[in-house]
Amino acid sequence: MVSKNQIKRITSLKLKKYREQEKRFTAEGVKVISELLLAGFKVEAIYVTETLFGEFPKIETEYVTAAELSKMTALSTANNCLAVFEMPDAKPVEYSGLIVALDEIRDPGNLGTIIRLCDWFGINQLVCSPGTADIYNPKVVQATMGSLSRVNIVYSDLTTFLIQSEMSIFGTFMDGKNIYEQELPSSGIIVMGNEANGISAEIEKLATERISIPRFGNLQQTESLNVATATAIVLSEFRRK
Amino acid sequence: MVSKNQIKRITSLKLKKYREQEKRFTAEGVKVISELLLAGFKVEAIYVTETLFGEFPKIETEYVTAAELSKMTALSTANNCLAVFEMPDAKPVEYSGLIVALDEIRDPGNLGTIIRLCDWFGINQLVCSPGTADIYNPKVVQATMGSLSRVNIVYSDLTTFLIQSEMSIFGTFMDGKNIYEQELPSSGIIVMGNEANGISAEIEKLATERISIPRFGNLQQTESLNVATATAIVLSEFRRK
Repeated sequence: MVSKNQIKRITSLKLKKYREQEKRFTAEGVKVISELLLAGFKVEAIYVTETLFGEFPKIETEYVTAAELSKMTALSTANNCLAVFEMPDAKPVEYSGLIVALDEIRDPGNLGTIIRLCDWFGINQLVCSPGTADIYNPKVVQATMGSLSRVNIVYSDLTTFLIQSEMSIFGTFMDGKNIYEQELPSSGIIVMGNEANGISAEIEKLATERISIPRFGNLQQTESLNVATATAIVLSEFRRK
Repeated sequence: MVSKNQIKRITSLKLKKYREQEKRFTAEGVKVISELLLAGFKVEAIYVTETLFGEFPKIETEYVTAAELSKMTALSTANNCLAVFEMPDAKPVEYSGLIVALDEIRDPGNLGTIIRLCDWFGINQLVCSPGTADIYNPKVVQATMGSLSRVNIVYSDLTTFLIQSEMSIFGTFMDGKNIYEQELPSSGIIVMGNEANGISAEIEKLATERISIPRFGNLQQTESLNVATATAIVLSEFRRK
């Protein structure tokens, strides 16, 4: 039996303020919870409905009704389980290999998709500017589908991070060099910019390599790619031989 | 002054049933509306708040209050204008150039992103299975950011469409050939499959070329790419030299 106070505490974790106070976040659904457990995230509690009997054999679970779970969920439709995890301490970023840096990515769906892409392309260091969406936002946790557990993510002042680096810093700009014609290295920092404004002027100054994804259709249009799809294309280009 | 009945009719257009009955759909915001007007979509009415005075000089607009607009909007937050457009008749698909075919893409956000990608990569024919999300769903209209006006989109039974084709039919499968190592042609049909189940068994039989996007990270994981980001990578590979 879950108490009203427990439900209240769990729903409070939808807000960043309370997640940071408590150093806890929630994840929902067998797949996401299992991936986080597998990756060694410390779990505080798992709430499951009766339909899920035996799903997490090594962990003590607490049974809740579907009605209780629907009060606890941060999703529009409750899954059949919800777990409260401890936020791990981020490991310091090492200046090696490919690193993705995000300059104010605001949309949780975009952030989640980018984390999944990093995981797919074997990039396990992601640096986010402080204004980037929170990786422990429930929408991000769900969108990453477990990739959260395989990418080390650090929030850091990007200017300082880039200045301290001796690596090449790649940024995508309209007037950049055609990415398809570049020799792309296996180490460097790839900066992706804000949904509406792109890379900020301060960060732009620090970019050592300006690249662009050429447009093939209707060249008179000024339309841009969504940042998550642009990231997909850029990472694919860096990894292909 | 907009009447209660007008508001009721406009809000009914959130539902596919009423859009199809009326052959009308809504679009919101200056950018999306302007792009559709520019592309020659026939507009029935544009409702604007006072803040937008003079934005659509050649068209008669109707003033509404912010409160009225917030009753009409299909978005979570109303923009400052909303237009009702006539649905154009789709032109028949020509079997030439690159064509994207969608096998049951359910998520409006994914569909909108894929339409934008087709536009970016100069692919102006998109064929959707009947179970794919509706392109006139307000979420799709907004996500396309005007690309809707530059891509001819047809709903059609995919099996029939593919059987009648003499073009190569490309499908992405886990066991497909590494896409980075293929010579990809400038004409053919590229099939992208459902978010949860991929390409259906019936359509899989019709694929003449099986391709895959290789994974670079943590190879023991079974995680897949989101269909919109996979489409981005596939279209980029077809278009790059």
